[in-house]
Amino acid sequence: MASQSTSTSFEEKMAGLKSMETLNLSGFTKPVVILSTMWNLDVVSALVDGCRTELLRLGMPERLIVNIQVPGAFELPSAALEAAKAGPDAVAAVICIGVLIKGSTMHFEYISDAVSHGIMRVGLDTGVPTIFGVLTCLTDDQARERAGIAIGEGGPGHNHGIDWARTAGRMALLPEETAKALGAATASA
Amino acid sequence: MASQSTSTSFEEKMAGLKSMETLNLSGFTKPVVILSTMWNLDVVSALVDGCRTELLRLGMPERLIVNIQVPGAFELPSAALEAAKAGPDAVAAVICIGVLIKGSTMHFEYISDAVSHGIMRVGLDTGVPTIFGVLTCLTDDQARERAGIAIGEGGPGHNHGIDWARTAGRMALLPEETAKALGAATASA
Amino acid sequence: MASQSTSTSFEEKMAGLKSMETLNLSGFTKPVVILSTMWNLDVVSALVDGCRTELLRLGMPERLIVNIQVPGAFELPSAALEAAKAGPDAVAAVICIGVLIKGSTMHFEYISDAVSHGIMRVGLDTGVPTIFGVLTCLTDDQARERAGIAIGEGGPGHNHGIDWARTAGRMALLPEETAKALGAATASA
Amino acid sequence: MASQSTSTSFEEKMAGLKSMETLNLSGFTKPVVILSTMWNLDVVSALVDGCRTELLRLGMPERLIVNIQVPGAFELPSAALEAAKAGPDAVAAVICIGVLIKGSTMHFEYISDAVSHGIMRVGLDTGVPTIFGVLTCLTDDQARERAGIAIGEGGPGHNHGIDWARTAGRMALLPEETAKALGAATASA
Amino acid sequence: MASQSTSTSFEEKMAGLKSMETLNLSGFTKPVVILSTMWNLDVVSALVDGCRTELLRLGMPERLIVNIQVPGAFELPSAALEAAKAGPDAVAAVICIGVLIKGSTMHFEYISDAVSHGIMRVGLDTGVPTIFGVLTCLTDDQARERAGIAIGEGGPGHNHGIDWARTAGRMALLPEETAKALGAATASA
Repeated sequence: MASQSTSTSFEEKMAGLKSMETLNLSGFTKPVVILSTMWNLDVVSALVDGCRTELLRLGMPERLIVNIQVPGAFELPSAALEAAKAGPDAVAAVICIGVLIKGSTMHFEYISDAVSHGIMRVGLDTGVPTIFGVLTCLTDDQARERAGIAIGEGGPGHNHGIDWARTAGRMALLPEETAKALGAATASA
Repeated sequence: MASQSTSTSFEEKMAGLKSMETLNLSGFTKPVVILSTMWNLDVVSALVDGCRTELLRLGMPERLIVNIQVPGAFELPSAALEAAKAGPDAVAAVICIGVLIKGSTMHFEYISDAVSHGIMRVGLDTGVPTIFGVLTCLTDDQARERAGIAIGEGGPGHNHGIDWARTAGRMALLPEETAKALGAATASA
Repeated sequence: MASQSTSTSFEEKMAGLKSMETLNLSGFTKPVVILSTMWNLDVVSALVDGCRTELLRLGMPERLIVNIQVPGAFELPSAALEAAKAGPDAVAAVICIGVLIKGSTMHFEYISDAVSHGIMRVGLDTGVPTIFGVLTCLTDDQARERAGIAIGEGGPGHNHGIDWARTAGRMALLPEETAKALGAATASA
Repeated sequence: MASQSTSTSFEEKMAGLKSMETLNLSGFTKPVVILSTMWNLDVVSALVDGCRTELLRLGMPERLIVNIQVPGAFELPSAALEAAKAGPDAVAAVICIGVLIKGSTMHFEYISDAVSHGIMRVGLDTGVPTIFGVLTCLTDDQARERAGIAIGEGGPGHNHGIDWARTAGRMALLPEETAKALGAATASA
Repeated sequence: MASQSTSTSFEEKMAGLKSMETLNLSGFTKPVVILSTMWNLDVVSALVDGCRTELLRLGMPERLIVNIQVPGAFELPSAALEAAKAGPDAVAAVICIGVLIKGSTMHFEYISDAVSHGIMRVGLDTGVPTIFGVLTCLTDDQARERAGIAIGEGGPGHNHGIDWARTAGRMALLPEETAKALGAATASA
């Protein structure tokens, strides 16, 4: 009687992202900045490694990958602004990596909210792709699963740092694609 | 004893939108950009198709419909700004299409909030109609129902991409209507 | 033993607003824009009627009342900015009327939040009184009660459109009152 | 076995605020604006009286206290901006007084959120101390207790208008103190 | 059958922050401002002491540490802007210290939200590191534990003022490190 319910697997949900596996970043001449937090360093390190490794696999010149550490997630937007303030002609992208885990106070909620809005603002203010690589988890296990270092039966999980690398690459290429597409549409009009 | 309770059907709630079925976009000379995410591609594709098909049905010249893909919903505001930054004289509207589905962490909540505020900001900052075509669903089924591809007994559901196309058309025509109405009121004063 | 609890009636809570019943808007020379949504048109129409009728009762010249329709509540801030962008010397006030009702997804929550912040922003950015006439209801009945068209035993309810008309009138007169009061205080100093 | 739990009394929590009881505002030459809402006028009036009386007790010249009424809490930020737009050289402080009480719709939540952010924005945009004197209560009794007019066994409660007067005075004096402290530190460096 | 669950200790989560224990702030020539609230003074004082003591231990010249008190947490962003408005060439960092504890109204929620966004904004607007040293607790005990003055069996707890001192030092040094890293990457390109 109830309408048929079907759940979509994680793999199916991510299928559309596969096109980014063949991004070619070898022509990049501007740095990509990986910002990461010192809190929850084991999980964050795995995410940073996953991100960096994927950038290299996509052809990003190693010398252009800049790593900078900040204390906690609240510092990510300010540090991202510092890195991006020279604008998209100087910086290809900033990837903000951190892990927030629910504790007994409301710290998690207010930090998560301020940081997600802050990273959004920096991207819009600077025009530099500013990637939200912050896990907002209810348990430690959730964080490890999303960093590819879970130790349970379900396997290590998917390292989201890989996706953030691809997202940074994709978004750095977007302005040129957008300008071309708009130009073509306008020229034809 | 309890006051009489009546619920309004979905069709009744949407009745006022019917006036947009006869919008005529054939005179448009500026592009409409359909931004869409790679995440949840099956649902997103259905929404994009519904949106694009309706734009064409309303007379929008096909060459002026620009499709651009971004990885996830968090990227929609930045990509919308990139598309809209030349202002309303250059771009008719940007339609931001994505699907967010509640998962086990708090990612859904923080992304949904930052993205809805981000899309609002881009519309206000640029003056280009920036349409919120993001589904924020608790289940996969809810998303499919709103993309017109549900498989349960209730039928495929209503494809909201259609409404976003109409909304884009309506909002692109609004500034001229507003200026005329204000001008008429002021002239008479 | 428990401290005495008393609840205040709706009438008592609104008693202080009665002073606005005798506002005189007959000297207005700038338009008041009533923006309203097409969604939930039966309730919205009642609110718009209540608002318009009250503006006229307060003496507002009919030719200065401008009605503009937008598809949904998310469009209210952008349309308000379009109407208000010429500033308080050109527009007396913008009244944003819409009805949001809780559904099964989280659409209600994210739209309500973005729209309330968006309308606030437009008022602060432009200096034009931008009235929040958006009902954020959990049920259809709540919306009808607040539009004066409920059909239960409790009567039709109070039409909040009336209050929004008064609020617009009051706020349009505020800058002059504020300047006078500050001037008087400063002159005496 | 459980760790010892101790709760701190309201008096202990407020002890640090006592230093403001001896603020001297007699040298003020710029107006303090008390904005207040017409909604919930009985409670609001008590808060305004408490605030005004305390400003006078601290030596504030009566002619410099300006009272302005707005319809509801949503109007407080716009009215505050109107009062504060001439900047801190012209206005000592704006105190925004209102009372929001949880009702059956979600109006309370969205208004409270937009208003608290709006008042914060006005303070940061103008540099004029803009005091958040808005009670966000779940019951009528809570509001009366915080306005010093409760009628239960617990006594009338503490009138928070008193604190807002002191906060306005303190914050109006802060820029000079800050400049001196920074100047002294820098001079010594 | 359930996947293995492991929780990470607080010490493990903070291990990555140890690198900041050897920060050297002795060369600082610009002031660090410690803003703190009068509300909850016992807890706040412990946090301020922890912060100040740590700044000194890291070599910060004592004369450059400026202490300023504001009434409550809502005043922290405005006071921070006042302290930081001369920019990063004049002020090394502002540390905003306060304690918010859940009460029976919704005051806690709206203040916490507005203050966390406000502090974020000041940091982004001014470029001066503006540290979020605000505890958002559900109980008095939680606040004391995080200020190192708990009285239960679990010991006094960790004083977070220490972390905020280090965070301020780290963030004040970040712009130079960022510029160098970006310069090196760009030079090599």
